[in-house]
Amino acid sequence: MQLHGYYRSTASWRVRIALNLKGVQVDHVAHHLRKGEQRAADYLKLNPQGFVPALSLDDGTTLTQSLAIVEWLDETHPQPALLPADPVRRAQVRAFAQAIACDTHPVQNLKVLAQLRHLGLAEDKVTGWAAWAIGEGLAACETLIAKETGPFCFGAEPSLADICLIPQLFNARRFGVELSAYPRLLRAEAAAQTVPAFADAAPERQHDAE
Amino acid sequence: MQLHGYYRSTASWRVRIALNLKGVQVDHVAHHLRKGEQRAADYLKLNPQGFVPALSLDDGTTLTQSLAIVEWLDETHPQPALLPADPVRRAQVRAFAQAIACDTHPVQNLKVLAQLRHLGLAEDKVTGWAAWAIGEGLAACETLIAKETGPFCFGAEPSLADICLIPQLFNARRFGVELSAYPRLLRAEAAAQTVPAFADAAPERQHDAE
Repeated sequence: MQLHGYYRSTASWRVRIALNLKGVQVDHVAHHLRKGEQRAADYLKLNPQGFVPALSLDDGTTLTQSLAIVEWLDETHPQPALLPADPVRRAQVRAFAQAIACDTHPVQNLKVLAQLRHLGLAEDKVTGWAAWAIGEGLAACETLIAKETGPFCFGAEPSLADICLIPQLFNARRFGVELSAYPRLLRAEAAAQTVPAFADAAPERQHDAE
Repeated sequence: MQLHGYYRSTASWRVRIALNLKGVQVDHVAHHLRKGEQRAADYLKLNPQGFVPALSLDDGTTLTQSLAIVEWLDETHPQPALLPADPVRRAQVRAFAQAIACDTHPVQNLKVLAQLRHLGLAEDKVTGWAAWAIGEGLAACETLIAKETGPFCFGAEPSLADICLIPQLFNARRFGVELSAYPRLLRAEAAAQTVPAFADAAPERQHDAE
């Protein structure tokens, strides 16, 4: 399998964590987002959306969208499970993941920030936009797991929720979001930092890191 | 069960379609988004994100995030299935759904458009933003199912993909997006229009429609 990604793409990072947790080896193909390589004709044949990540399977099929890829991985490589067995708990983990992957990250991604600049917004307002979107999302996430004993987002083992949270916290720091208001999220992050699957997926450990 | 929604919320609409397809009856509780009722203290106790939909179960648990709710429904009420059985096909349906629910709708929702106005953008630029986000998303979706024989997005029966597509096409028209470039999506819409579960979920059929 080949994972098409970019070291600093948080969506690619989610898939890297999931692959590491499952112990699945893949070849990593880097597409430099700031150079626009995700819009090259050859890549658009694999993923017409022009986003990373995309996972090319050995039979030539290419899967897109990080959450769909992680759920595919969880269905085809069940251990360790990235979702709980109970349907309500699965829904809670997925809702947390979607609060990040639907409502937070797409509102502050490279493409949206470029469009804000295109509309004439100054750089400080563009950065402020990203910080606003991330702050709104993390505040919701903090509340969603406030009563969870942890130490991970949902329980004693990492799940899809942690896979989405850790990269989003990186983006939060990048855009100057003050994180002290989110102690429960930081506790989940501290738990993840002890797991090699998370550490090995970090941007600075990737071969295309700058 | 109680579905907290709003007649014109496309995320609420997705859940309405899914409930109808499964034949599951719920009480509908309307929260008027333009009056800010989704930010009332009582509602924030149910959904700290301040978004609709939320599904309150009979035991007092409340589920949030439309895709998580639909997957819960599919797991607890398996017939008719909203996802295929094959893992790769499931990933493809989910990726299509997420191209809308992650990359399109959250970039053009009420909250984001309000923030654009807050930053001083004129109304024509705000509308243009919504049309841009929707056009980008629908173009990707058209390509994702270009080779699918249909008539629905993926096969002969509606799936999670159609559940996400139909409301998004409503928003596209609302923001003046020209849809003739998306014949495959329109074909899926025509198929859905023959299914009462879709027709009954439309905004104008809801008790809070204006």
